[in-house]
Amino acid sequence: MVSFKERYAELQQFVEEGLERFLPPEGEGPPRLREAMRYSLFAGGKRLRPVLLLEAYALHGGANPGDEALPLACALEMIHTFTLIHDDLPAMDNDDFRRGRPTNHRVFGEAMAILAGDALFNHAFATALEARIPPERLLKVLRILTEKSGLDGVIGGQVYDLEGEGAEPTLEGVRRIHERKTAALIQAPLMMGAVAAGAGEEEISRMERVGYHMGMAFQMVDDYLDEVGDAATLGKTPGKDRAQGKLTYPAVRGLEGTVEDAREEMERAWALLSVYGERARFLRDLGRFILERVS
Amino acid sequence: MVSFKERYAELQQFVEEGLERFLPPEGEGPPRLREAMRYSLFAGGKRLRPVLLLEAYALHGGANPGDEALPLACALEMIHTFTLIHDDLPAMDNDDFRRGRPTNHRVFGEAMAILAGDALFNHAFATALEARIPPERLLKVLRILTEKSGLDGVIGGQVYDLEGEGAEPTLEGVRRIHERKTAALIQAPLMMGAVAAGAGEEEISRMERVGYHMGMAFQMVDDYLDEVGDAATLGKTPGKDRAQGKLTYPAVRGLEGTVEDAREEMERAWALLSVYGERARFLRDLGRFILERVS
Repeated sequence: MVSFKERYAELQQFVEEGLERFLPPEGEGPPRLREAMRYSLFAGGKRLRPVLLLEAYALHGGANPGDEALPLACALEMIHTFTLIHDDLPAMDNDDFRRGRPTNHRVFGEAMAILAGDALFNHAFATALEARIPPERLLKVLRILTEKSGLDGVIGGQVYDLEGEGAEPTLEGVRRIHERKTAALIQAPLMMGAVAAGAGEEEISRMERVGYHMGMAFQMVDDYLDEVGDAATLGKTPGKDRAQGKLTYPAVRGLEGTVEDAREEMERAWALLSVYGERARFLRDLGRFILERVS
Repeated sequence: MVSFKERYAELQQFVEEGLERFLPPEGEGPPRLREAMRYSLFAGGKRLRPVLLLEAYALHGGANPGDEALPLACALEMIHTFTLIHDDLPAMDNDDFRRGRPTNHRVFGEAMAILAGDALFNHAFATALEARIPPERLLKVLRILTEKSGLDGVIGGQVYDLEGEGAEPTLEGVRRIHERKTAALIQAPLMMGAVAAGAGEEEISRMERVGYHMGMAFQMVDDYLDEVGDAATLGKTPGKDRAQGKLTYPAVRGLEGTVEDAREEMERAWALLSVYGERARFLRDLGRFILERVS
């Protein structure tokens, strides 16, 4: 039997190859722009969102991932990377390091970093359009993608995040940010994978709820690690969020409360997954893997 | 018979109403973000790209513009506005005024301006997805949109524009920028309107060529006016492009050469339109209207 780690590594490798396949080829566009896009896209990310998409696709009976799901998985990673590049900008969170390397704008300058983000965002849609699924399904996938990226998704979440700096920390305030900035881009892959495989409304809506709880748990763990981790593990300056006056989960619930709530969120996700039985084993293990980082 | 100006005003009004209809409604997303999006979207633009889209749709027999073409027209204006907001940023062209008003980042701050641009870009896709045309056509429209926005479209054009600052002005260099930064977003509406109306490959390809020549002429006229216009007519600081060391058409061809080349480009567009006879009268007049600004 394939272990969780083997399966994850396999999916991750599949995504790496997909990203190479779907990125603009040499000769397309300004070389320096392509270089800036690649710099952040191949910066050692865990490919969590693409992995979730591929797994949701398989869970709902999808049998041709290379043609049907991989373009969508890669699109998600491009959008995720676009949000990271723009979030790190001096005008935003002003981060110098990400995953242990200088941020995009530190290497390529601010103008190029803004444009590399824009280009990745655009190319995400171009890549999603490569998915060989029935047109109606593809349009549905794109609608989910724009909704979860938009004003009540990751872009709106970043606005609330910036507006929340220095504000009185409330549970409502911090959840509003996490729901949009993080959970939305965990919901999107789960829903999109299900749609690509031809799942029905009930299953898509279930994936949305699973993504919500997994995403919230994931961000709580992240906030926790930002408080207690060291620079080497984090690949960025620890405690920076708190120091910047960001609304973080531990600021509202304390460290123990954060771990408790993360567990509770994950248990809700698991409960929703129980209907799939053994087939959802990987997604359940993935949840455990996320939680283990705080144990 | 309806005059050119009356018809233009009519289409423009139709677009204004469409933008109101398709923008995110109150209650969706952070209010300040919506405000920043609206600020630049309703800044007195001529709505040239949406007007071109609606006209290309009508030219190819489209008969239900409100449902089939207007969402696409509005999407184009959102993308155009997104590029303007990002181009004006301090890290890019650092412009304080646009159309006689302070630029987005001067009013809302850099972070919000970046995010308003991102949100308009995303919302453009969400809006395009509202077009009630057959799924295959809609996917084709979206492919054109991503191509013309992408690495060899407007985003790549902005990179070449920035890289060209202070470089030796060559005709090849300046045309490479104008083809991408300007012509691509004139080609896109003409092609998308044709596709929405169900036009065939030959007609779509013709629209692409018409858009190329009209777009080049349009930008040449713009470069010319930047040299000779005054701040009141331009709504921005005249001569700024040249002063910034930007590659402009007059820098290569002189003022007279620029006007000559603009006329020649427009004549090529007209020649391609001749196949449509009287039905292309509005597009021809639009070309004349563009050229008249330099006469």
